[in-house]
Amino acid sequence: MKDMNWNEAVTFASPYPYLLVTSVDRTGEANAMGVGWWSFTSMKPPLLLVSLAKNRYTLECIRHSKDFVVCFPGEKIAKGAWFCGTKSGRGINKLAQAGLETMPAKKVQSPIIVGSAAVFECVVKSEFETGDHVVVLGEIVSMSGDMDNPMHLYSIFYSKLISMDTKGNINDKLEY
Amino acid sequence: MKDMNWNEAVTFASPYPYLLVTSVDRTGEANAMGVGWWSFTSMKPPLLLVSLAKNRYTLECIRHSKDFVVCFPGEKIAKGAWFCGTKSGRGINKLAQAGLETMPAKKVQSPIIVGSAAVFECVVKSEFETGDHVVVLGEIVSMSGDMDNPMHLYSIFYSKLISMDTKGNINDKLEY
Repeated sequence: MKDMNWNEAVTFASPYPYLLVTSVDRTGEANAMGVGWWSFTSMKPPLLLVSLAKNRYTLECIRHSKDFVVCFPGEKIAKGAWFCGTKSGRGINKLAQAGLETMPAKKVQSPIIVGSAAVFECVVKSEFETGDHVVVLGEIVSMSGDMDNPMHLYSIFYSKLISMDTKGNINDKLEY
Repeated sequence: MKDMNWNEAVTFASPYPYLLVTSVDRTGEANAMGVGWWSFTSMKPPLLLVSLAKNRYTLECIRHSKDFVVCFPGEKIAKGAWFCGTKSGRGINKLAQAGLETMPAKKVQSPIIVGSAAVFECVVKSEFETGDHVVVLGEIVSMSGDMDNPMHLYSIFYSKLISMDTKGNINDKLEY
């Protein structure tokens, strides 16, 4: 085996499930961010974690809203999902520019992105620094999805999106 | 969207890159565990995290060895990798029973599993509880792999392994 640099290492570990994480800013406006670094981390209680770079606007919003929604984007919203992974929401109406619509969540104030294949509504439990990122730990208070159509997006490094289901069926010809 | 239970939720988020995490116990014997809940979490310094259930033998070993190696198993060792995800190493020579061989790592005492497509050697930075799991934060001190052959294993819930590369080429006919 040869030495790998960071970009090669992250590419190697791809594809990786790609999320949109929604939150609400101080003015009540919804925001969304593309997140590749996340994981489940407890079954009882059900917890997941997301890693956010320290300067991310979403981190400011989550600290305000104290909740967030993890959306697994379906392939129909690949273009908007990709936009949310490449632009900051600071000072712009990011969701509108991304062409994404939202709907109310069941149990938290952060919204659901229309076109998500599954959503996990989360209440912030704690956060901790891990270098140049902050891990936000969320308790999952509602889980819903369409198990009959589990295609959702995966990212490959910061350069490509594909769509995949739980059987490994892939669509790598997305427009975004 | 319908409500999902926990098993459906974890299945939905599959496939997910599957790791073997090695460590060394108090007697100097190597151990390995299958891990699905992991993520990168910092670029500078390069950090990753793994979530281990609190009663896992690997957690005891990592607290002793203060380092661990994250191995991305290649498909040739699918059978042994699956075994390591289903049995505890407490009281048995798990690697031998799994039919897996090890080789020395470059910078840490925990070993590399022969047949890995990539390995990240990690030194433990800290740990924190997240419910019924403990997150172990590791600083990556060496990264190596075979970028010409990036096929490695992905798990689907706790029921299936497939092999995939960074282009989404899949082998779902593994023997394990």
